[in-house]
Amino acid sequence: MYPQSLQTLIEQFRRLPGVGEKTAERYALMIAEQPEEDVRQFSEALVNVKTKLHRCPVCGNLTDGEECDVCKDKDRDRALIFVVQSPRDVTAMERTGEYQGLYHVLNGLISSSKGILPEDLNIDQLVERAKQAREVIIATSATMDGETTAMYLDRLLKKECPDLLVTRIAHGLPAGGMLDYADEITLSHALADRRAM
Amino acid sequence: MYPQSLQTLIEQFRRLPGVGEKTAERYALMIAEQPEEDVRQFSEALVNVKTKLHRCPVCGNLTDGEECDVCKDKDRDRALIFVVQSPRDVTAMERTGEYQGLYHVLNGLISSSKGILPEDLNIDQLVERAKQAREVIIATSATMDGETTAMYLDRLLKKECPDLLVTRIAHGLPAGGMLDYADEITLSHALADRRAM
Repeated sequence: MYPQSLQTLIEQFRRLPGVGEKTAERYALMIAEQPEEDVRQFSEALVNVKTKLHRCPVCGNLTDGEECDVCKDKDRDRALIFVVQSPRDVTAMERTGEYQGLYHVLNGLISSSKGILPEDLNIDQLVERAKQAREVIIATSATMDGETTAMYLDRLLKKECPDLLVTRIAHGLPAGGMLDYADEITLSHALADRRAM
Repeated sequence: MYPQSLQTLIEQFRRLPGVGEKTAERYALMIAEQPEEDVRQFSEALVNVKTKLHRCPVCGNLTDGEECDVCKDKDRDRALIFVVQSPRDVTAMERTGEYQGLYHVLNGLISSSKGILPEDLNIDQLVERAKQAREVIIATSATMDGETTAMYLDRLLKKECPDLLVTRIAHGLPAGGMLDYADEITLSHALADRRAM
């Protein structure tokens, strides 16, 4: 229905996560109305991500440089490793400004429903790094796959590094969360993990 | 927080309509994981839209060619003009397969809140085309701005082309619409525009 050039762009936008036909049309029509220079910058930003961005060889996070900024930072606690699913989780944690150790990005979670096995993830490297660490904090999501991965890593790390402290981030009521809106699993966690005031 | 190349792409995605920080991150991280060839095609599709796409000189719709496909089609009723706000409306109408006349795309609506005046729209050309037409169907949305524009065009066209039939698309209950969920304005329209069965 649309001219070929516009239809091609709509199909490209449709491949983004959660974008349907209507949204893709809206994006493409907005692009059609932008100044050419702006669209060229967008176009170059796409290619640059593929040519410049790669995984940090140490922790698996995304970086433009050789190693990522966290791994390069000599002021951070190098014996503490925070294990997450994806680069987004690193950014979320860095925003808190509270954490001074290193990260390890698994790039996925073990998932029977999606057929993702431990060998598909960045786990071997974690075991190597854990041998020099004091504590590994497992910070996968509080979902089925996140818990499965956490349990797998806990067992593996304790076997490979007997002296290592393996911890899991706390589960409980989120900030601003109201007791009567919380689900049973959250409340059970909040009760089980209660601490002295 | 993210590497520069990724951050730049996130900012580009944020400029799309309705895209916030989280969604832009999700889009950019998906791009980072796609094969380079796919991302290059996306990048080229963006630039192609700016270099190939332009407005049809007759009706104002978007086209890659000289005139748009509808204006070029000699089998269509050239004395019937369907007036819409945007190219998306043309596509929506063409999907019905019911309409055999031509279109006219205003590229906006008269809007006091957005400060859009009649001279900002593709209206002069509509008046010229209307002089050769039998009927002009005004199909702007059933919103405040859509109704304002419809009333303005009705008055202008009747003054400039006294023999022209000016019509407005029907307002009423949408397909699948339930009476008890319809708002009062829709119901008033549905009552006023009732027809013999």
